[in-house]
Amino acid sequence: MIDALLGDGGIRKAAAAARPGHDPATTLARVAWSVLAEPGDGVAGALISQLGAVEALRFGLSDESFGLAEKTIQDGRRRWLPRAQPRAIGDALRGAAEVGARLMLPGDAEWPGALDDLGDHAPAVLWVRGDPAHLAAPSRVSIVGARAATAYGDAVAAELAGDLAATGNVVVSGGAYGIDGSAHRAALGAGGGTVAFLAGGVDRAYPAGHLQLFERIRSSGALVSELPCGAAPTKFRFLSRNRLIAALGAATVVVEAGWRSGSLNTAAHASSLGRPLGAVPGPVTSAASAGCHRLMREYDAQCVTNAAEVRELMGVDADHPGAEPRSDPDQTRLLDAMSSRTPHPPAELARSAGLSVERTRALLGTLSLEGRVEQIETGWRRAPL
Amino acid sequence: MIDALLGDGGIRKAAAAARPGHDPATTLARVAWSVLAEPGDGVAGALISQLGAVEALRFGLSDESFGLAEKTIQDGRRRWLPRAQPRAIGDALRGAAEVGARLMLPGDAEWPGALDDLGDHAPAVLWVRGDPAHLAAPSRVSIVGARAATAYGDAVAAELAGDLAATGNVVVSGGAYGIDGSAHRAALGAGGGTVAFLAGGVDRAYPAGHLQLFERIRSSGALVSELPCGAAPTKFRFLSRNRLIAALGAATVVVEAGWRSGSLNTAAHASSLGRPLGAVPGPVTSAASAGCHRLMREYDAQCVTNAAEVRELMGVDADHPGAEPRSDPDQTRLLDAMSSRTPHPPAELARSAGLSVERTRALLGTLSLEGRVEQIETGWRRAPL
Repeated sequence: MIDALLGDGGIRKAAAAARPGHDPATTLARVAWSVLAEPGDGVAGALISQLGAVEALRFGLSDESFGLAEKTIQDGRRRWLPRAQPRAIGDALRGAAEVGARLMLPGDAEWPGALDDLGDHAPAVLWVRGDPAHLAAPSRVSIVGARAATAYGDAVAAELAGDLAATGNVVVSGGAYGIDGSAHRAALGAGGGTVAFLAGGVDRAYPAGHLQLFERIRSSGALVSELPCGAAPTKFRFLSRNRLIAALGAATVVVEAGWRSGSLNTAAHASSLGRPLGAVPGPVTSAASAGCHRLMREYDAQCVTNAAEVRELMGVDADHPGAEPRSDPDQTRLLDAMSSRTPHPPAELARSAGLSVERTRALLGTLSLEGRVEQIETGWRRAPL
Repeated sequence: MIDALLGDGGIRKAAAAARPGHDPATTLARVAWSVLAEPGDGVAGALISQLGAVEALRFGLSDESFGLAEKTIQDGRRRWLPRAQPRAIGDALRGAAEVGARLMLPGDAEWPGALDDLGDHAPAVLWVRGDPAHLAAPSRVSIVGARAATAYGDAVAAELAGDLAATGNVVVSGGAYGIDGSAHRAALGAGGGTVAFLAGGVDRAYPAGHLQLFERIRSSGALVSELPCGAAPTKFRFLSRNRLIAALGAATVVVEAGWRSGSLNTAAHASSLGRPLGAVPGPVTSAASAGCHRLMREYDAQCVTNAAEVRELMGVDADHPGAEPRSDPDQTRLLDAMSSRTPHPPAELARSAGLSVERTRALLGTLSLEGRVEQIETGWRRAPL
């Protein structure tokens, strides 16, 4: 099996062409894993990290004993073997070449190290259409949310993504209708970078209504998937794909989400990876914001209302306005007691404000320096604004 | 001075009438303090708690030395002396008698012990129009917010207050336009109890447009102030009044608030008293919700979206829905791979789902028991919903 895979001249050639200057056996073995195992298969991931992709494949498709984890390995083999067909590997490489999708392996120059935080659940490979440099950009933020977004959610997603992209952050999302689409579009509109992680192959426009958007992302950003060309997006793959969105962003922000929205799954991934998590509040009367409020209540998501607060969440900068200076309560009491028309003598103001005459005189001095009160003959009144 | 106050026969008689069966000297001394000192005067409070109200008054109006805190006491005396006029005390008692306001002192049967948490800043007395029992009700919640509320805020305040009042919680607020008014009205509408803390005397309807509302609160709830009848509401008194609202509620909820709203002051009091603090989210595009979002970000306020969540905040009960059961990811993968029309044999489903044939067969068994898949001859398909 393994020999048929690694020994096939045509496939080997395609693998060499897909990553010129690299060892074709490793390329081939990782592509094989991306075909054999579903995204996030931790057993496959553990084998690869312990043995290297080539040996892991050889062992994974053999019947050698492994000792303690015997059952886990046997279960894995039963998952992988039915898919171990040289033709499927060849199809993956050929499909990618046809649409100009670039193959990336962990450790490659533009491989985003952030994905390594996924450990044994990291992807075996990435297929990229567009510029892979976006994946390794110094600052990336994930903006996700409901497909069934409201006009409010779409507007807030666009506002956040546009501002963040314009200030040098690559906007990462999932290419779906609703919030994802608004975020990608605003990033492109601001002339910034954007990455769309797809749940199927990068040759498949899903949803089909986003064909044009994906074409724009391909030409100014990057369309990315861990699944080979031709792979269909399934519910499981949407959920697994969410871990990549959560891992790539320095922070994840959920703009709108229903009570059981798939975006909560992305949020949970971000949380478990230790990435800061933000949620945009909305009307409590809007079902499309219920998931965001839930994230604040149950997942300790930070409430974020603008791009500056998202940057703060990312730890980029803290340009929020400082707390207002506390005004002196005695000053407030004195001003309360003063008229803006009739002047009153300090003793009368003191009694009315409940302050000593001495304190009143001192405060009148300060306030008069600030131009907030004025003396008229023997009395004081508030200065006109 | 003190002898003129405590010795005046007319005032003594009025004090005895205001609290029948209690020591008139104490009554008189506390009423005097409520006239001499502005709300929350910590020096007056410290003297009263150390010496008792009568001795504190005698000492506070004397020129006796106090040792270490000499300057503090001297400053206090300079605040109190200008107001120490027997007539003002008489006016306070007479004004209350005229509108039927009941005088309450700490320790009285219906005095709310929660206010004692304010320490030296606790009120010297309370003047109550309506039923003082509301103050000592077993469960009280404070609902406050912006005067310049939006229709959204008014609706949410009414929804929360109505539900909480109907389930036995006294709704505490400040009687202002906007959120406060909506909360009081909804509590009354639900046939529940409500307490309005006013910033001036309970004989003064402020704002005047709430005259009718205050009349309804007086007859079915309680209008309360620490200031004597005739006292004008001032900015300082509004701010001091907020500490009473924060202290009386088991929790404080801010429904809408601008970035610098006075409600944030109430929230800060609640926080510093260790009372749970909730904030209702709203659109990030609404200036009327900016303060609520600020409370979540800077004051660690809990996001609350309905009455059940407010009850949870109060620690009353936790009737929130449990987390949804996690579905088995393998099951999701198998169902993804199945058609609802064409049946497929288990081996084919296994390959397509990336599962072992054994696992696939086992899952098909479970799913078929649940009626979610069906076997047609040698193949399986999803059952119609």
